[in-house]
Amino acid sequence: MRTDYCGFIDAKYLNQTVTLYGWVHRRRDHGGVIFIDLRDREGIVQVVCDPDNGVAFEIAESIRNEFVLEVIGLVRHRPPGTVNPNLVSGEVEVLVQSIEILNSSLTPPFLMDDENLSEAVRLEHRYLDLRRPEMQANLRLRYRVAMAVRTFLDQRGFIDVETPTLTKSTPEGARDYLVPSRVNIGHFFALPQSPQLFKQLLMVAGFDRYYQITKCFRDEDLRADRQPEFTQIDIETSFLNETQIMAMMEEMICQVFKSAVNVDLPCPFPRLTHADAMSLYGSDKPDLRVPLVLTELTDVMKDVEFKVFREAAHWPGGRVAALRVSGGGTLSRKEIDDYTSFVAIYGAKGLAYIKVNVLEKGLEGLQSPILKFLPETAVKVILERTGAKDGDLIFFGADKARVVNEALGALRAKVGHDRGLAEPGWKPLWVIDFPMFERDEEENRWKALHHPFTSPADGHEDLLETDPEKALSKAYDMVLNGSEIGGGSVRIHRTEVQSKVFRALNIGPDEAQEKFGFLLEALQYGAPPHGGIAFGLDRVVAMMAGTESIRDVIAFPKTQRAQCLLTHAPSAVGEKQLRELHIRLRHAQTAKA
Amino acid sequence: MRTDYCGFIDAKYLNQTVTLYGWVHRRRDHGGVIFIDLRDREGIVQVVCDPDNGVAFEIAESIRNEFVLEVIGLVRHRPPGTVNPNLVSGEVEVLVQSIEILNSSLTPPFLMDDENLSEAVRLEHRYLDLRRPEMQANLRLRYRVAMAVRTFLDQRGFIDVETPTLTKSTPEGARDYLVPSRVNIGHFFALPQSPQLFKQLLMVAGFDRYYQITKCFRDEDLRADRQPEFTQIDIETSFLNETQIMAMMEEMICQVFKSAVNVDLPCPFPRLTHADAMSLYGSDKPDLRVPLVLTELTDVMKDVEFKVFREAAHWPGGRVAALRVSGGGTLSRKEIDDYTSFVAIYGAKGLAYIKVNVLEKGLEGLQSPILKFLPETAVKVILERTGAKDGDLIFFGADKARVVNEALGALRAKVGHDRGLAEPGWKPLWVIDFPMFERDEEENRWKALHHPFTSPADGHEDLLETDPEKALSKAYDMVLNGSEIGGGSVRIHRTEVQSKVFRALNIGPDEAQEKFGFLLEALQYGAPPHGGIAFGLDRVVAMMAGTESIRDVIAFPKTQRAQCLLTHAPSAVGEKQLRELHIRLRHAQTAKA
Repeated sequence: MRTDYCGFIDAKYLNQTVTLYGWVHRRRDHGGVIFIDLRDREGIVQVVCDPDNGVAFEIAESIRNEFVLEVIGLVRHRPPGTVNPNLVSGEVEVLVQSIEILNSSLTPPFLMDDENLSEAVRLEHRYLDLRRPEMQANLRLRYRVAMAVRTFLDQRGFIDVETPTLTKSTPEGARDYLVPSRVNIGHFFALPQSPQLFKQLLMVAGFDRYYQITKCFRDEDLRADRQPEFTQIDIETSFLNETQIMAMMEEMICQVFKSAVNVDLPCPFPRLTHADAMSLYGSDKPDLRVPLVLTELTDVMKDVEFKVFREAAHWPGGRVAALRVSGGGTLSRKEIDDYTSFVAIYGAKGLAYIKVNVLEKGLEGLQSPILKFLPETAVKVILERTGAKDGDLIFFGADKARVVNEALGALRAKVGHDRGLAEPGWKPLWVIDFPMFERDEEENRWKALHHPFTSPADGHEDLLETDPEKALSKAYDMVLNGSEIGGGSVRIHRTEVQSKVFRALNIGPDEAQEKFGFLLEALQYGAPPHGGIAFGLDRVVAMMAGTESIRDVIAFPKTQRAQCLLTHAPSAVGEKQLRELHIRLRHAQTAKA
Repeated sequence: MRTDYCGFIDAKYLNQTVTLYGWVHRRRDHGGVIFIDLRDREGIVQVVCDPDNGVAFEIAESIRNEFVLEVIGLVRHRPPGTVNPNLVSGEVEVLVQSIEILNSSLTPPFLMDDENLSEAVRLEHRYLDLRRPEMQANLRLRYRVAMAVRTFLDQRGFIDVETPTLTKSTPEGARDYLVPSRVNIGHFFALPQSPQLFKQLLMVAGFDRYYQITKCFRDEDLRADRQPEFTQIDIETSFLNETQIMAMMEEMICQVFKSAVNVDLPCPFPRLTHADAMSLYGSDKPDLRVPLVLTELTDVMKDVEFKVFREAAHWPGGRVAALRVSGGGTLSRKEIDDYTSFVAIYGAKGLAYIKVNVLEKGLEGLQSPILKFLPETAVKVILERTGAKDGDLIFFGADKARVVNEALGALRAKVGHDRGLAEPGWKPLWVIDFPMFERDEEENRWKALHHPFTSPADGHEDLLETDPEKALSKAYDMVLNGSEIGGGSVRIHRTEVQSKVFRALNIGPDEAQEKFGFLLEALQYGAPPHGGIAFGLDRVVAMMAGTESIRDVIAFPKTQRAQCLLTHAPSAVGEKQLRELHIRLRHAQTAKA
């Protein structure tokens, strides 16, 4: 058995004979002596093979990069001047007594320390890509995070209960992955989009505190950073209200950040209502590192000459808002044009602006193509409300509130980061008081903003029927640096409230019974008040690791076409397999013989 | 927030006002006072509601079993003579100050303490079944086991790495569950039967020590105690040989038993070769609690008159063996007939026996229908080899070795338990030195006894080609009380050995490349020596819990028809969903509109 990992061989082993296993990271011949950097998951140690040791030297001469070796040797000080302070093992080296080649290696298709690898090449040879120190560190970080979560929850009486992976399809929200049943002809299992209903049933069953770190599945067109299977830290508890749940969960995230990456998050997290989040930041997941805020101008613009502003201010659900960029006066025409294209992605038809050159000079001190359409009084209010200073630039959005919020919200974050205005570090917050419903314009009906099992806020139960758009929920999202990392709610625990919500969502009694009959029934047998949350583990770890892509914190991820480049999944299957499952392909030529 | 769980309210809370949440386990009216047994996951506390407290009393009068309550009250001593020593809270009771009904309940379809529930009823209302103390205890035991495993492995540097659930179909061994791909037309993912290849790739990637507690899937006809999805404790390590891996794993199981159920397993576990296991116990998972063993008689029977014995002794692969049952002389004709029917299940065509009445009397002292066909010399050898004593019975098996082993192996365990010969407690062992291959008679080819990635024993590599049936492997099974609870092996880490095994299994180069190309390639880039094991979590926990069925330690199991009686999965899905997946049913009438 090895004495220790290569990366841990240091002065405490001086003058001892050690047994090491590892990979040849690099081999150098220098002055007739062979130096090998021997690598394992904990780091590198320098191994020296002297020509005096004929047998070992001969073997050492034959080895190449990525060969796997067993090395037995004596730990000694490195000669003066050759100490490497960047390595734990940097003071010592191992003088070889014997070497055994445990396995050879072809020349890898890429260098382990190449920083510019294409992701496709990395994924095709993931077993080599995962040898790179960054990937080793990422997956070990992921493990530390998961264990820190388990430790925290265990101490508070939560127990991990496994819920089914082969479950029932309830088309709602995202598309299900389906699994044909062989035994039950023509029937299908679905892979869970989340264990939501099962964890609620566990509360009905009296488990009191549940958690699970579990795979969830969504068959969606993969946007930038989504995966068909992703991992959720899923938590549910009985008899706690939303305030108590949020307090416990922010404590958990703080402890996890502390233990996994030694970061002290600012605790307690600020709480922001959904309405304020939209009004101030144009987003329900604002990046609070960026100090910019939106300024409400709808009231001011009702009578201005500028048609774009005036009309938006009069529309029901219209909004006119400003975004003051401190020091934005130095933005070039080209930069402003680029931002105009950027907001167009979100549907904004233009991006009006005012440069504030010298505030004291009044209108004279401003510069803008739209000034001539705005009365001086309106300009004065704009300058006052935005708190404009010399050298600032003010952007405007005027459209349906949704477009203004999305455009200026995204612009706020982008400009803030582009201009170096963002503070460093971590800015968590809770967004609360979400509406129960949002309008699905295409299908002309209400849909649940969170999910249909979310409890309405106290006193808002009647609004479900009279004024659904005004009903607020007991949902809460945890937001960190502009990403939603967790979302949850207090759930409905009474059948009659659940039925009201289904009605508001246009889910009739028959449909409710077919899809969620078991839940409605369970709620009738003494369901306790309960609520919970789910965190996206992949995202949290990616943020901690400082990587943009969750693929960098998943051992074997899929591409954006939902393929595994390593194993070539998904793949064609045999006709016999399909026949056993009672299905056939619509395009027969793709079946295997 | 609650003061504590109901089950934890004891004398330390005397004279304190406590807030409790729980379910009405039972309500009794006694002498004008209402007594409520309030239950939560930790147990029961007695709540007393006095008619003096008018408001609370009125509420208390309206409550029924399984209502959910918030109770605020004063903890006081129970009156003398009413102390219940079976409850943690048995010395105290809670005098109600206020009661709030948090939820009502219909009358449950069964009593929580009914011991004779049909499993179907339990599974249909699983959220109520899970309230029963046994089920609560089972799932919490399961959690403790999983956490004990994590703790042990964490301390030894293993890290939990998640492998994909949507992976590649490689029809080998069991049937895959398939998942049609929407994006990749006509292609399918498979749910993993085990993370075998991924964990090997993680070793190639240098993670050194991996574990995962993960779902695996097999679409098999469900025998007595199988589930479509089951949970595996999956472990892999580099640079350890089979002895080192076994030592570490038995240490783990010992610690888990100690911490989860306070059992000291006899450590180290005995090791038994596969050949000895078959010879002595007729089984590769012998129940060592039963002290009976088989006695080899093949050599003795080559020349006897009794045709059944003589022929079996001459067949290639034939076997004649005896099973001595101490004190079996008292078995009745009826009992022997029943055992004859029992061994017939395993293909035995009869069950010859000799009763040993008085050993001293020689043939006179024996009683058996077959004595007249056996020469006295053979009988003498039988008596000597089996170590027969007065009052014993000797059963015989004569057939192909497989039939004899299965029949007498099963009989050995059954008779042993029926006759009260089994020792109590836990009898673990390792079975080692398995053959690499077993003959698939139907398909007339060799198949892997463990799996095709298992390393041959040292020095047995050449046998793969010359004498495959003689090649032993570096596989090991952990067996406990007659169940295989874990199995593993040192894996092949060299491409050329892997190719030889594929050849022996009749897997041609093209097929090997298509199915396992990524593994063969990975082995070429410095794969370290590695090995591991997988334990069946469901089985281990079921054994600890003392239940026959793994369904009792799974929160939401499926029936033997692979259905969830609670959610009614699997179920019919819409035509639109099928169309998106590019599949259609072979029996169109089952699709939903």
